[in-house]
Amino acid sequence: MTIGDPAGIGPEVVLKSLVELSFLRNVSLHCYTYPEILLDCSKSLGINSKKISHILTSCINLSSKSLKDLPKPGKPDKQSALIALDSFRFVIRDIKGKKLDAIVTAPINKKNISLIRNGFNGHTGYLSKSFRSETAMMLTANDFRVVLVTEHIALSEVARYITKDTIINKTLITINSLKRQFGIPNPRIGVLGLNPHLGDDGLYGDEDKRIIQPAVAALQKRGYNVRGPLPPDTAFLRTRFDAYIVQYHDQGLILQKYIADGCGVNITLGLPFIRTSPDHGTAFDIAHRFCADHRAMSQAIKTAIQLSRLK
Amino acid sequence: MTIGDPAGIGPEVVLKSLVELSFLRNVSLHCYTYPEILLDCSKSLGINSKKISHILTSCINLSSKSLKDLPKPGKPDKQSALIALDSFRFVIRDIKGKKLDAIVTAPINKKNISLIRNGFNGHTGYLSKSFRSETAMMLTANDFRVVLVTEHIALSEVARYITKDTIINKTLITINSLKRQFGIPNPRIGVLGLNPHLGDDGLYGDEDKRIIQPAVAALQKRGYNVRGPLPPDTAFLRTRFDAYIVQYHDQGLILQKYIADGCGVNITLGLPFIRTSPDHGTAFDIAHRFCADHRAMSQAIKTAIQLSRLK
Repeated sequence: MTIGDPAGIGPEVVLKSLVELSFLRNVSLHCYTYPEILLDCSKSLGINSKKISHILTSCINLSSKSLKDLPKPGKPDKQSALIALDSFRFVIRDIKGKKLDAIVTAPINKKNISLIRNGFNGHTGYLSKSFRSETAMMLTANDFRVVLVTEHIALSEVARYITKDTIINKTLITINSLKRQFGIPNPRIGVLGLNPHLGDDGLYGDEDKRIIQPAVAALQKRGYNVRGPLPPDTAFLRTRFDAYIVQYHDQGLILQKYIADGCGVNITLGLPFIRTSPDHGTAFDIAHRFCADHRAMSQAIKTAIQLSRLK
Repeated sequence: MTIGDPAGIGPEVVLKSLVELSFLRNVSLHCYTYPEILLDCSKSLGINSKKISHILTSCINLSSKSLKDLPKPGKPDKQSALIALDSFRFVIRDIKGKKLDAIVTAPINKKNISLIRNGFNGHTGYLSKSFRSETAMMLTANDFRVVLVTEHIALSEVARYITKDTIINKTLITINSLKRQFGIPNPRIGVLGLNPHLGDDGLYGDEDKRIIQPAVAALQKRGYNVRGPLPPDTAFLRTRFDAYIVQYHDQGLILQKYIADGCGVNITLGLPFIRTSPDHGTAFDIAHRFCADHRAMSQAIKTAIQLSRLK
């Protein structure tokens, strides 16, 4: 796993999770970091350094030199951005070298990383490029899973970015991943519509009929177990699907975050390996208080282990 | 209460609710309908007509003549539209005449009513016009309440319809109603943002900063207990507000319907009286099967009674 931006809650949630998961056997967990960062964090948390010696020795050190100035919680800067980026780059190097089965990324801040690397647009974008893979973003709350057709764009742009091809691609990536990585032989997929009540027969918005319906029909024709477009406000009520394809960020994430209750996990589909992360950000504003909830990070690690074993 | 479109599940859910609520004292429940419709429905449900005689005698008859051809469940037509509209008009007449404290409307279908009345755009629009009131649409799941800034419009139009004035107006209608009708002295209101993560500091979409933030600030300046804009996907997780102002239909209704679990109630705010309805439609497709879930209708009636007593 990466350490994330060390000025955020990354070190804290990583350390707490590794302490919690110390009992695990038959799995090697490695954090890519300067071990000093975790050691410093343990002091702030009042954890005896002996208790975490096994964690420190399993760290993959980012440099042979030790770190002079420790990053300050709540104060992101170029140094913290560099550590975040190095941690991520070394993890990628080792997954390419087949030394790892899965990666778990702690939160980073795109703006802070942009200070040292122009045009950096997040973990997922970087991974897609590095592995020349078309990816899809899945958010989970246990076995409730949503996959986004559009991701971080303005709500006013959503309708413009929804195309038949994108919906088909995202759905196929989801189906392949559910089969290959989640061990679900014939995944049932629900595709949400875009407009309230699917536009009430053309009264407001025609995307449901013009774009989403043909995409679903094309997938059904190829034999996939896909249904939709489902009216957004009732889609999640009755039949349970193995995954829901949602047209925009908050169409899926409002309910996913509510059900996850602090334990939500982000999974990147379409890569040749497993990558998970907690579904929250760096939380720079509370990093100095050492009160962060590590359950999403811990769940992200457990999910990565589980999916690696199913593979 | 109205009977709704008698070709839909209106008669069934009204009758089942009235049977369920027969034990209530100190409240007079009247259904505006041809009693024959309820009698016919009771036969299909296998309810002995003696058991519902008190319900039939408390009906307000829509005409002195009896109904020749009974409406056919699942077959909406001009006659069923006319009954739906008459039922609604007579209820309005009696609430204007102070004969009623509250009205509960069973579902109608706008398209079917348009056959006999051009430009009819639903219960709420008709009531706003009749009482020259600016209204707001609240959906509830017990004490979880969302109020819509925009209602039944295409998702692609939402950003265009959100203005500072609309947000302020909808919030003030909500606050006044919570005070006056719900008996909450100093309502706490959460106003949701529009874009994912509020547009991440202008990276995608500026409406949160440009429109919603100033609306919230203006309300705070006037002393109201209003917070926002809240990031949509986490808005519902922590602090509980007495009501959430949501920017578009599915931003609020996906979670409201999930929490309501079949018992959601729609409340029109801003009228000089209480109006509730179940949060579902006519369901023409299942009307002939007599298997409709009446819990939302029953909850709508109970909510109307409760709010009338608090008034």
